[in-house]
Amino acid sequence: MTETDAVIVGAGPAGLFQAFQLGLLEINAHIVDALPYPGGQCIELYPDKPIYDIPGLPVCTGRELVDRLLQQVRPFSPTFHLGQQVSLLQRQEDGRFLIETNTGTRFLAKTVFIAAGVGAFVARALKLEGIERFEGSQLFYRAGDAQAFAGRDVIVLGGEDEAVEAAVGLAQLSDNRPRSVTLLHRRDVFQAEAQRVDDMRALVAAGALRLVIGQPTGFEVAGDRLAALQVATPEGSTVSLPADALRVCYGLSPKLGPVADWNLALERKQLVVDTEQFQTSEPGIFAIGDINTYPGKKKLILCAFHECVLAAFGAATVVFPGKAVPLQYTTTSTRLHALLGVR
Amino acid sequence: MTETDAVIVGAGPAGLFQAFQLGLLEINAHIVDALPYPGGQCIELYPDKPIYDIPGLPVCTGRELVDRLLQQVRPFSPTFHLGQQVSLLQRQEDGRFLIETNTGTRFLAKTVFIAAGVGAFVARALKLEGIERFEGSQLFYRAGDAQAFAGRDVIVLGGEDEAVEAAVGLAQLSDNRPRSVTLLHRRDVFQAEAQRVDDMRALVAAGALRLVIGQPTGFEVAGDRLAALQVATPEGSTVSLPADALRVCYGLSPKLGPVADWNLALERKQLVVDTEQFQTSEPGIFAIGDINTYPGKKKLILCAFHECVLAAFGAATVVFPGKAVPLQYTTTSTRLHALLGVR
Repeated sequence: MTETDAVIVGAGPAGLFQAFQLGLLEINAHIVDALPYPGGQCIELYPDKPIYDIPGLPVCTGRELVDRLLQQVRPFSPTFHLGQQVSLLQRQEDGRFLIETNTGTRFLAKTVFIAAGVGAFVARALKLEGIERFEGSQLFYRAGDAQAFAGRDVIVLGGEDEAVEAAVGLAQLSDNRPRSVTLLHRRDVFQAEAQRVDDMRALVAAGALRLVIGQPTGFEVAGDRLAALQVATPEGSTVSLPADALRVCYGLSPKLGPVADWNLALERKQLVVDTEQFQTSEPGIFAIGDINTYPGKKKLILCAFHECVLAAFGAATVVFPGKAVPLQYTTTSTRLHALLGVR
Repeated sequence: MTETDAVIVGAGPAGLFQAFQLGLLEINAHIVDALPYPGGQCIELYPDKPIYDIPGLPVCTGRELVDRLLQQVRPFSPTFHLGQQVSLLQRQEDGRFLIETNTGTRFLAKTVFIAAGVGAFVARALKLEGIERFEGSQLFYRAGDAQAFAGRDVIVLGGEDEAVEAAVGLAQLSDNRPRSVTLLHRRDVFQAEAQRVDDMRALVAAGALRLVIGQPTGFEVAGDRLAALQVATPEGSTVSLPADALRVCYGLSPKLGPVADWNLALERKQLVVDTEQFQTSEPGIFAIGDINTYPGKKKLILCAFHECVLAAFGAATVVFPGKAVPLQYTTTSTRLHALLGVR
């Protein structure tokens, strides 16, 4: 159990800059994110696309912005807890919040900042009733240890870069080779890099990779184990593909997830906040960025930055009760210079 | 008379980014500033000092931030009207605003954005009753044509860089030489670059520059012209210094100026705005940056940027009445790409 002043849910631009603003007020923070890396939507949706409206950055990519924010927050060294989702948020008797993640991390925090954007980015599921019981043993959503596929009949599901790359990668393994690799996609068109698609087609031509066009409609078990996938072909018939491992590459989809269960005031699935502290209906819980709403709200990164400032000052009244926390300027304050490690 | 959608009062970071945000909404703007260059406080107060809290810019100087904002707004080419102060702001019968500056520029604008920071930076005056009538003929507040001082007995007043530099410069002239140059400061300590002070002391030692310690208390006239300055010495006596030209270098001081006369709701000399559109008590007049106030207000550049966004959307309802103006993203909108001149 980690005791802390602040837990930030979300490591996108809003979460990162929130940690920076808290740092300036000498409030340390832990950051939790469902993705295995910081950056949120910027990294997940447009890492290489240019953004033109960050003030003072006439053009920068999503990745560059995240790198810059990571560099900026470095003096305050927030602790990152990545690849995990907050599953519980509960007020304790002493007024603090108990926070738990799905991997078992637990915090006791004075303040909470929800910077969860459009929600946690989680893998789009293969929707076949009952198949979820094989997750982790025969059903995989993330790239992982190739050994899990050694000697098995593997089906890779999907039609974008991640799927084509996974299929090619598995078919080219020299150690821990699967017994067979099948790429299954609903149509014979792939939204992936041309070179990667060429590699895939070459492996198919060489017999090292099987390509099946169709939609999964069910599965077959033998004993306790997944044995085959039933696939509807474009002609309307159903075929059975032997499978003792599935690698699903359907991309990531944002899910608001448990935020909706925390009894915070919502308006059209957004957390309602005031504009003085960007506090939710629950004192001590703040919400910044795309997940909040208030009169005039625009879902822009640069607006989230402003929200972080006022939320940080709001939190200061909780973390340092009865103490006035004045605004200091990074240009002139020697105290801030010491915190930032400059001069 | 220039007819326009928007006039922005103030060319500091808030004014510049306001023009950018208006540009994204296809609203063209004219920018007025009392200083002869854009940048406001950033340039006037800390051009070379590092700022650490602009999101995504871990460190940048005031000058660098202004350069970046100028580059960012370039696609929208706002028209700058510099070195002039707005002297009149008046609602017309058709709902538009008549705006006049002290140099005679006139606008008829649908919306007005007051981004005047701590006020217009104007030269600190020499406070001697009646002396203002010599301004422009024998009393000068800004560096200008050396010819104005040719053959005259010049007194330079002040103790900082600008004063020392002006005195040294006048004493070293080879053409248009003044008859005499006197540097007048209240004490024999100068807040100026060491090298510049050394140069000044050397000229004094060589008899090319006179240094007088004392405070101006009055002046003498001969006919219609200023003839001498009366100066109280540290010993308490009064001496008369012949002077037919004064160069006052008392620095710049911000003055709220006529903003206070525009009948807008004020709170402790700040313009009261809502947080949905950052509109003042007068519909169509918005206020952003250090000059406004609202619950939670923090006087930070990064907060002003957010205010610019919401004020721009507020103005859009005035400029495009009855038309919904959706939020578009610079990352994805081809319309914004065309406006920004990219791709």
